[in-house]
Amino acid sequence: MTVGTKPKSSISTWILVGIILVLAAGLIGVLLFLKNQPQPKRGMVPIQQIPPKDPNSADWGVNFPNEYSTFLKTEMNNTPTTYGGSQPYSKLEKDPRLVILFAGYTFAKDYNEERGHMNSLTDVRATKRVSEKTTGTCYSCKSSNNPQLWDKLGVVEFDKMPFSELGKQITQPIGCANCHEAGTMRLIVTNPALEEALKAQGKDWHTFTRQEMRTVVCANCHDEYYLKGDGKYLTFPWATGTKIENIINYYDTANFKDWEYPDTGTPMLKAQHPEYETYTADSTHFKAGVSCSDCHMPYMRDGAAKFSSHDVKSPLLDPEAACGQCHTDVDYVVARVATIQAQVNERLLATEDALIQAIDALKVAAASPSVDKTKLDQARKLHRQAQMMWDFVAAENSMGFHNPEETLRILAKATDTARQAQLMAIQAAGTLDGFFTSQ
Amino acid sequence: MTVGTKPKSSISTWILVGIILVLAAGLIGVLLFLKNQPQPKRGMVPIQQIPPKDPNSADWGVNFPNEYSTFLKTEMNNTPTTYGGSQPYSKLEKDPRLVILFAGYTFAKDYNEERGHMNSLTDVRATKRVSEKTTGTCYSCKSSNNPQLWDKLGVVEFDKMPFSELGKQITQPIGCANCHEAGTMRLIVTNPALEEALKAQGKDWHTFTRQEMRTVVCANCHDEYYLKGDGKYLTFPWATGTKIENIINYYDTANFKDWEYPDTGTPMLKAQHPEYETYTADSTHFKAGVSCSDCHMPYMRDGAAKFSSHDVKSPLLDPEAACGQCHTDVDYVVARVATIQAQVNERLLATEDALIQAIDALKVAAASPSVDKTKLDQARKLHRQAQMMWDFVAAENSMGFHNPEETLRILAKATDTARQAQLMAIQAAGTLDGFFTSQ
Repeated sequence: MTVGTKPKSSISTWILVGIILVLAAGLIGVLLFLKNQPQPKRGMVPIQQIPPKDPNSADWGVNFPNEYSTFLKTEMNNTPTTYGGSQPYSKLEKDPRLVILFAGYTFAKDYNEERGHMNSLTDVRATKRVSEKTTGTCYSCKSSNNPQLWDKLGVVEFDKMPFSELGKQITQPIGCANCHEAGTMRLIVTNPALEEALKAQGKDWHTFTRQEMRTVVCANCHDEYYLKGDGKYLTFPWATGTKIENIINYYDTANFKDWEYPDTGTPMLKAQHPEYETYTADSTHFKAGVSCSDCHMPYMRDGAAKFSSHDVKSPLLDPEAACGQCHTDVDYVVARVATIQAQVNERLLATEDALIQAIDALKVAAASPSVDKTKLDQARKLHRQAQMMWDFVAAENSMGFHNPEETLRILAKATDTARQAQLMAIQAAGTLDGFFTSQ
Repeated sequence: MTVGTKPKSSISTWILVGIILVLAAGLIGVLLFLKNQPQPKRGMVPIQQIPPKDPNSADWGVNFPNEYSTFLKTEMNNTPTTYGGSQPYSKLEKDPRLVILFAGYTFAKDYNEERGHMNSLTDVRATKRVSEKTTGTCYSCKSSNNPQLWDKLGVVEFDKMPFSELGKQITQPIGCANCHEAGTMRLIVTNPALEEALKAQGKDWHTFTRQEMRTVVCANCHDEYYLKGDGKYLTFPWATGTKIENIINYYDTANFKDWEYPDTGTPMLKAQHPEYETYTADSTHFKAGVSCSDCHMPYMRDGAAKFSSHDVKSPLLDPEAACGQCHTDVDYVVARVATIQAQVNERLLATEDALIQAIDALKVAAASPSVDKTKLDQARKLHRQAQMMWDFVAAENSMGFHNPEETLRILAKATDTARQAQLMAIQAAGTLDGFFTSQ
């Protein structure tokens, strides 16, 4: 029996060895297949692929529902704070002296408190400051269509095109594409004016950390700017620095004026919204490493998900969320803001008094036939500087809180300079005739 | 055998019971004795009993060697900081414009940076500001002999006694008895002027917490004061509040002047060292519950013992110990101080420019025969207010850091008011003759 079974056994053995080899080869094959599969990507798998510079924030919102739903709130939130918020009251009605200070310029016609990001397009199209002469530049900070349009038209063409004509290609308010790169979602500089202004200072934003970018992306729009030359090319006046003294020097060197003040002949400057310049001028929070987003877009929770709120607004509207990320005693912090803003507001209004008296004096001097023209020009220069310093604070959206000490320093200097303008106007006239008539 | 042993056994039992009873009674007696012993006192057992208001700090030092040995360092520490410290440089040499601003007053003769507490007696006796007219009041903040002397002489007598005569009874510099109660060591108000000024505001320091007292004891000396009436009675001008506006109103109502400015006729005010008023005017640190002692007398260790350093000095001389009690990033904090003090110093010097030009203008107006006397008085009032506001910052020992925003607010107002004084002087003269000759 054992002899007869031997060949059978040998065949079975070979069959078994064959099966083992086949299985081993199969296993190696499967392992190799698995090893060569693409690694899972960091972060979430997008539900929807976003085309580069997609202007439609709703597309991005499919992938980022928390960020998008909070972003949509910027349209609705009209809550006022003591000095700001997002209720579009008329600044000219609140402080009628602004009509005197901006006499001869469009801001004396229409000047409202800003609203949230979602309203940018509605509001720029509604303002009476826009006229037939207005160019495309004024859309630069108003739409997420811009990144694609800058590529398509070129920045020079974008800026010099009539506002109404460019407007036909613009459908979206500020949105995701103004600060994010599609696909990676990283924070990026999109405004060519910011890229150029940083370069002029020898800075390359690609080298910045993410925390630095959480401030720098806000500078895509929240800075002082002017429209350079006949092409109204959007330019940030930062070549020698971003402090108020640097900026005034820049405009003096460029021989630039926004308008001429009626009856005084002063070549005036209008400050825009220099939040970035003010905050980064060695403010306490900036030096401590706090970014704009930390306070204006605080981290929130939705279940287990942590996200940065995109309902960009005053931290005073939700101090627990905004200040409470770092400060344990939120009541103390809110009271500090109130104290500081009241101090700044007091000096802001005092500077307006000084400016208006300087303007009155300059009018008398400019109308005097025997005026010393050199001294009159000196008085005008002082008026120009003083009002720009005041406006650097007045147009900045924080009533000084972004940088309390620097703001109060600027206002102290602005008042002093306005009074010096008044004194120089009297000196230029060489006589007291016509001065101090209304006091 | 059992019958015969019974009585023996009974006797032994009674002996044992007796022993037990004696022992139990003894034990109860000992326990009652222990229970009725006096409880151990909280705190340390003094090595030496300190008599009430003992002027000799060395006596107190036997019980508190760490506090005393650090206190002794206030004599030796002459390290300068950027704007202060305890090196007795001449302020008049450092900023010669002070000679103009204090013209006609003793501070134009001699005005040195203060030194540490142990030097108080040496320095008050060395200053050229002391003359034969000087009264005992000027010892009020200079000696630990005062608490006993106020009891012995009465405050009225102390203040009006000639400085030289009172000096014979004064042997000690500032010391323990100026802030502590002997025996309990609790912090107390010792200066009668402070007690009265707090009462005038409806405050009773006995109700203050220990942490509040760690600021209030410094106000025994570090405040604005004046010498009231012929008796030169030491008085803090706080009846309507401790802000600069309250203090100027107080002096205006009291029709008080420290001196008359030569050739302008301005009734001037000299600010002293309003550290308490500045710090408590809603400063960031004060509102956060930080006391003077937390920064100027930080907690230290000597082996296992924790004590408050009595080497009272600028926190900048040891920021790790002073700021590091609360702040984790001391380098950041020290840089903040430098930024803020530079901003304050800039505006302080600008205010001096404005004041000197106002003084020049007032001199011309006052010398004009046809001057409008009402307007001249208005100009003088503005000069008086402006210089007092400036001096409230200049004489305060922190270059604004005790309250950056309030300090910059005051300086902004001071500059504005000085310029208004200059303008009003021109208006009073009614002609430009004699003005702007040196500009």
